[in-house]
Amino acid sequence: MVNTISRIIADLHQDFQGCLDGQLADYIPELTKADSNWFGISLFTADGHGYSVGDTSQLFTIQSVSKAFTYGMILDEHGVEKVNSRIGVEPSGEAFNSISLDPETGRPFNAMINAGAITASGMVGGSGLEQRFEKIRKRFSEFAGRELKIDDEVYRSESATGFRNRAIANLLRNFEILDDPVDEAVEVYFKQCSILVTCQELALMGACLANGGVNPVTGDRVLKAKNVERVLSVMSTCGMYDYSGEWVVNVGLPAKSGVGGGVVGVLPGQIGVAVFSPLLDEKGNSVRGLRVFAELSRLFNLHLFNYPAISEYVIRRVYKLSEVGSQRQRIKKHHDVIHEHGDKVTVIELQGDLFFAALERLTRIIERNAETTSTYILDFRRVVLTDAATEDLLVNVSADVEVTGKQLLIVDPASVLERSRPDLEACKVVFTDDVELALEFCEDQIIAEHVAAPTVSDLIPFHDFDVFNFLTSRELSEIEGALEMEHFQADACIIEQGSQPDMLYLLSRGSVSICLRQGESDSEKGARVAAFGPGVCFGEIAVIDGKLRSADVWADDPSTCYTLSAANLEKLEQGSPAIYAKIIKNILLLQIDRLRRFNQEVSSLRS
Amino acid sequence: MVNTISRIIADLHQDFQGCLDGQLADYIPELTKADSNWFGISLFTADGHGYSVGDTSQLFTIQSVSKAFTYGMILDEHGVEKVNSRIGVEPSGEAFNSISLDPETGRPFNAMINAGAITASGMVGGSGLEQRFEKIRKRFSEFAGRELKIDDEVYRSESATGFRNRAIANLLRNFEILDDPVDEAVEVYFKQCSILVTCQELALMGACLANGGVNPVTGDRVLKAKNVERVLSVMSTCGMYDYSGEWVVNVGLPAKSGVGGGVVGVLPGQIGVAVFSPLLDEKGNSVRGLRVFAELSRLFNLHLFNYPAISEYVIRRVYKLSEVGSQRQRIKKHHDVIHEHGDKVTVIELQGDLFFAALERLTRIIERNAETTSTYILDFRRVVLTDAATEDLLVNVSADVEVTGKQLLIVDPASVLERSRPDLEACKVVFTDDVELALEFCEDQIIAEHVAAPTVSDLIPFHDFDVFNFLTSRELSEIEGALEMEHFQADACIIEQGSQPDMLYLLSRGSVSICLRQGESDSEKGARVAAFGPGVCFGEIAVIDGKLRSADVWADDPSTCYTLSAANLEKLEQGSPAIYAKIIKNILLLQIDRLRRFNQEVSSLRS
Repeated sequence: MVNTISRIIADLHQDFQGCLDGQLADYIPELTKADSNWFGISLFTADGHGYSVGDTSQLFTIQSVSKAFTYGMILDEHGVEKVNSRIGVEPSGEAFNSISLDPETGRPFNAMINAGAITASGMVGGSGLEQRFEKIRKRFSEFAGRELKIDDEVYRSESATGFRNRAIANLLRNFEILDDPVDEAVEVYFKQCSILVTCQELALMGACLANGGVNPVTGDRVLKAKNVERVLSVMSTCGMYDYSGEWVVNVGLPAKSGVGGGVVGVLPGQIGVAVFSPLLDEKGNSVRGLRVFAELSRLFNLHLFNYPAISEYVIRRVYKLSEVGSQRQRIKKHHDVIHEHGDKVTVIELQGDLFFAALERLTRIIERNAETTSTYILDFRRVVLTDAATEDLLVNVSADVEVTGKQLLIVDPASVLERSRPDLEACKVVFTDDVELALEFCEDQIIAEHVAAPTVSDLIPFHDFDVFNFLTSRELSEIEGALEMEHFQADACIIEQGSQPDMLYLLSRGSVSICLRQGESDSEKGARVAAFGPGVCFGEIAVIDGKLRSADVWADDPSTCYTLSAANLEKLEQGSPAIYAKIIKNILLLQIDRLRRFNQEVSSLRS
Repeated sequence: MVNTISRIIADLHQDFQGCLDGQLADYIPELTKADSNWFGISLFTADGHGYSVGDTSQLFTIQSVSKAFTYGMILDEHGVEKVNSRIGVEPSGEAFNSISLDPETGRPFNAMINAGAITASGMVGGSGLEQRFEKIRKRFSEFAGRELKIDDEVYRSESATGFRNRAIANLLRNFEILDDPVDEAVEVYFKQCSILVTCQELALMGACLANGGVNPVTGDRVLKAKNVERVLSVMSTCGMYDYSGEWVVNVGLPAKSGVGGGVVGVLPGQIGVAVFSPLLDEKGNSVRGLRVFAELSRLFNLHLFNYPAISEYVIRRVYKLSEVGSQRQRIKKHHDVIHEHGDKVTVIELQGDLFFAALERLTRIIERNAETTSTYILDFRRVVLTDAATEDLLVNVSADVEVTGKQLLIVDPASVLERSRPDLEACKVVFTDDVELALEFCEDQIIAEHVAAPTVSDLIPFHDFDVFNFLTSRELSEIEGALEMEHFQADACIIEQGSQPDMLYLLSRGSVSICLRQGESDSEKGARVAAFGPGVCFGEIAVIDGKLRSADVWADDPSTCYTLSAANLEKLEQGSPAIYAKIIKNILLLQIDRLRRFNQEVSSLRS
């Protein structure tokens, strides 16, 4: 089946195939050798998936598109301050080959006009033309994911006719913007412009910028993250020569074009796009490039300023512990206390990518619930992405929570947040990997606060268990004879997943965890899916339906259980059907209760 | 408890309170009357929540900030083409009061320099100065959410000294860019610049642009949606005079400043921010304005080009009908067929805001599953927002699916999508409000394809029901005497929510829906939470645990049920405990089965 995006791009290619407006660049003879029909469109997503149609494997010279990448390189090499002292970031409003220097300082307006680009090439360190150029070629190759070569004839031709650029370079030297040797800087620049790329490669180079400076195909970092924003900023205001303003209006993506016919555009975080068609307008931009980009931007709504209002979906759900508790089975008295005081615990589920607007909404929810809440649980399980600024904001939120004596728990199993930050530690934020543990932690706090702690040696008598409700004292005596008692040390395995069900357990003292292993051979302790405290019956399901044990059960603490064997249960079924019916009905009632709670949870989870 | 965002903004205000660099504007005496200490920061979210600190209720003249809004007004009034013919969108690289006109056409470079702004004011239609100005004042008031007034002294002073602007206007008239009367256009412009606003109002005006042209507080549309993007584009390249390039690098938000000391910035879809401080730098921008914005952009990571790579979270889950079916209880044979052929139905759950990158990922999933899938269900229940371009893309996806003979179902209860589009109808897309109905629809298709249809009159005999498994023929005869048979017409209410449970039902023919009403008094048919087909037992839970009916049960088709009354069940418990125990155990086994499926679903939903 056809991929819809591929088809749409192919349709677009078809639509503009016949457009032969514009002229081939002719300031050097080599460029006029291009075929006017050449036309390719490529798109790479920020996760490295590519779409291409047309002449996207045809090599052509990168020309001025190189300016954006060399600018990035010198920002990496020298830092913003030094680069800023030599090259501005203001649009000049003039053509690419204008000699737009600041009248006072001689500083070129920006790195996208020739003066700024020659300055940038001159700042690429190394000794001698070859070494300096090789550095550029190598870095460009990392962007493109292939070893790039240059077109020697184009280079020689540029070099033989580039008097205007030499004039610019000497003016720059005059203002002490360019260091010696002047000629070398110009030659590096000519060579850099003569690097051969394909449309596909250009799109991937753009995708590296969309992906924060990491090549999404090779995984290599090709530009420091902090410099990506600056390169895109300058592309956005200056990348399309004196058509830049029009471009922002019509396309709305940072972009750079070259007289070789290439145009690359970047939608930060999403895609790099390239169009290749060597027919140029009078401003030096590819005619089909401009038209295809405008159409793509419209079709896919890529314009950066056309972002619709973000919505409430970053806050997935807000609930109280009294509404959704942990899955730990507790005795009724404890459940009641939790239900009564559970409003003090507010759980906020966040989802998606967390940036400023999400954090801002979070602060409102925290504020709104402040009066009744003593503990906030922030559930980060569905948070995929955040940034340093948002993390700083979260530290601020934590500090504001802590200062009021409230408590903040963060459930962040994927470590989206950097937990070991001292400023987070200072706020006494508690991290857990599991929302269950966070809920249990809060429940235990509530129980400890409101219920007298039982002594360790307290045993719950067998007749207090719900499975024996409605039994007469005579029936209870009969049952007593069928029960045995077992003791387990902490960390003992009580039930093994996959084994035959031979008995059901009544937890009289201690606590146990239900853990699920994925495979038979999995020797690790599996994922903890539930936990039980004293007074709870477990292992009864498999005994009833005869299926193999579906999970491991581990003793968390030293634990004591009454056990009723499957054999004894069967004896009851045959000999004392009335007792048996009562026990089965009691188990059924417990299951119904559990099912009702599940129903509630499922509808809450599904909503 | 303090709101963290408020606190951070207050801290920022504190940090820059002492900064008194810069000068008051002095080209007219009135502006020098401002207090150098005045300093306010306001922020409005795109959903209308405001934060303010400092002198945010102090009135000041809007000055050049007005240019952005008047530009929007004439785009609304005349359309892009006409406005474009008179005002460009290219940055001039020069100061605000430069006379930057295109040498050939006389067209001002853009609407943010005085020449373009005067042209814009001259295009506001009406007869006479007052009527034309009133139009501007009224629209600005809608942006600000309050009736705005002008500072008459400032206006008179501007008018008395505005010779340069009159010169510009006459040049514009010379090039036939400005229509007669020239003086009136200049006076409208002076008046517009003298409108008084507060910092809070300016932030709200920005939030209107962030919110796609709708005032988020009043709900009024104040600018056509399609023109918002253009206004923001021009602000981004030209809004900060000849500091615009630097601004994009340092702040990265479309913005506009004025010599009154106001600066407004917009993060599309998220917030409008305003800073007010009348001390200006030599380029006419508020010094504290620039610094606070740079700091806010850094603190909150608002830079438009610093958007991290979007992640896979837009695709919430992909599953097959064979893994998660509908909640309809069916007979085993049907369940088996569904399980066997359910791989042909691929359900794709989407979530969050759906734009290009999300749709692109969707196309990949559709492509990847194409070989085995005959029906796709797109679950839009968690999709909050989409745009026209993405909807068009979805139409394309639908067409590509339809052309291969596959089927597309879209679950979209909130009508995020416009269903009545003829192009969607042409693709035979089936819409439902309920994922359950979509799953059932596919299950019914599978059953119809693989199982011979039963005739309507077929009745399932009572001894085939699971609740009577393991009963001997003697026991079955005893049961038969305890059963009755009831017929229900389509749409009959079989069980009423809240009533006493007096019997359990065995559905022998037809089908029923379980519906949940929210309140007692709710007379509407509630939400359909489950559906049962022939062979299923229902209403047994309440009979066992004695609680009131928890839901309504409706006959969807003419239906026939065997019924077993609670009284007869109790008789069995007393008189035939062995039969009773078997029935209870069978019900327990069904519950266990249901619980196991729930467990699976809950862990799937929770993950």
